[in-house]
Amino acid sequence: MQAIAIIAASGVGKRMKLPSGKTKQYLKLGVYPVIYYALSAFQQASSVEAIFVATLPSHIAYLQKMARRYGFHKVKFVIEGGKERQDSIFNCVEKIREVYGDDGALQDKVILIHDGVRPFIQPNEIDEIAELSKSFGACVPATKPKDTIKYIDGDDNRFFGETLDRSKLLQVQTPQGFRADLIMSAHQKAQSDSFYATDDAALTEAYFPEQKIKIFEMGYHNIKITTPEDMDLGKAILKRLRQSK
Amino acid sequence: MQAIAIIAASGVGKRMKLPSGKTKQYLKLGVYPVIYYALSAFQQASSVEAIFVATLPSHIAYLQKMARRYGFHKVKFVIEGGKERQDSIFNCVEKIREVYGDDGALQDKVILIHDGVRPFIQPNEIDEIAELSKSFGACVPATKPKDTIKYIDGDDNRFFGETLDRSKLLQVQTPQGFRADLIMSAHQKAQSDSFYATDDAALTEAYFPEQKIKIFEMGYHNIKITTPEDMDLGKAILKRLRQSK
Repeated sequence: MQAIAIIAASGVGKRMKLPSGKTKQYLKLGVYPVIYYALSAFQQASSVEAIFVATLPSHIAYLQKMARRYGFHKVKFVIEGGKERQDSIFNCVEKIREVYGDDGALQDKVILIHDGVRPFIQPNEIDEIAELSKSFGACVPATKPKDTIKYIDGDDNRFFGETLDRSKLLQVQTPQGFRADLIMSAHQKAQSDSFYATDDAALTEAYFPEQKIKIFEMGYHNIKITTPEDMDLGKAILKRLRQSK
Repeated sequence: MQAIAIIAASGVGKRMKLPSGKTKQYLKLGVYPVIYYALSAFQQASSVEAIFVATLPSHIAYLQKMARRYGFHKVKFVIEGGKERQDSIFNCVEKIREVYGDDGALQDKVILIHDGVRPFIQPNEIDEIAELSKSFGACVPATKPKDTIKYIDGDDNRFFGETLDRSKLLQVQTPQGFRADLIMSAHQKAQSDSFYATDDAALTEAYFPEQKIKIFEMGYHNIKITTPEDMDLGKAILKRLRQSK
């Protein structure tokens, strides 16, 4: 079973309070930049045959060089991202269509879409999600929320509304896996409708509501690096993962 | 304006994978145990006049000693917690009623209920929440969720249901503040109904639905320590808070 990975690495990281021009994917986490770890994991995952990366124009050459330097030969294309994350994924989807063609080469393939700022995904987790995406059509990793979640009442952010039943909720992560035809079609429809969803799973929900999405229960290590505190946590997780190997 | 604090420190921390007898409140975070930091913050908060702590019977003497040693003279009572967190809070509520009596000494008071495993709450944040609880009747700190939140479909944890609109959601934290009569009455009703809610705010929602709960937007530092990764993050936050002082 062969999976194609898309890695979104175009975010500028407003919450990270970085000097202009700096982006969170390229901050150093231990020895390597944040983005290195996800690329390395997808390179090692045996289910993955090719990696497409969307990033800022100013970082394309840098990423291509990184891929060569560390032997990430599965990184086939590093292309320019779009305005929003979803536009970046769409650009990769279009590139995949161009490369593989429309004559059945994508049949039986799975596409895995990952945030470049989630460095701690492990190769075996990628393989499991690829396998489940193939079997069920769609599979998304998630963890149970640690805190109680409440609605905001009205639009002015002043008061709380209803409390949600936490036992019924999951916080979703990436990589999100889908049958290639399903997610490519969803992205194409969304682009022509100018419809933006919160993530790729929500896109398929919107256009293919009959497609059930399998839950893959993930550990708390697969964090998204968005704030300065996350960089600290990231360093600690990195250390812990190394010790457990 | 005077506030009474309740600190819940009876949890055994199943997710922390500790040896039996060890509890997460007493793990060392830097120089001091986790619980020290919250006690210190409530001691320093000028709005707080008294602190009631509920803990395991085996830790009562230890906490009393800690309070004496570090001059936490606002810690008036360290009592035995109950089966669930809510039972522990109820025990403190009953103790407050016993100490203050029913003849109006609690009028105009606010009760702040805090998790002993949230060490990074700051004295000025406690004072602001106390003030807002007084003005609005109830005030609860919260942060925006970083991840997309989805419902679980059905009861077997296999597939996702609907995606929630993240811009309408908040993850709630503690200290949660309430007018004393309101929260004491809610806890008493819940105890006699054997009704358990996910947190104190949800208790007041259940018994006093007309009471609006004010949102206090909190930073990401006010984490709850529940997993080994949280201890690592905690050490990093501690360092960051010290540097910023």
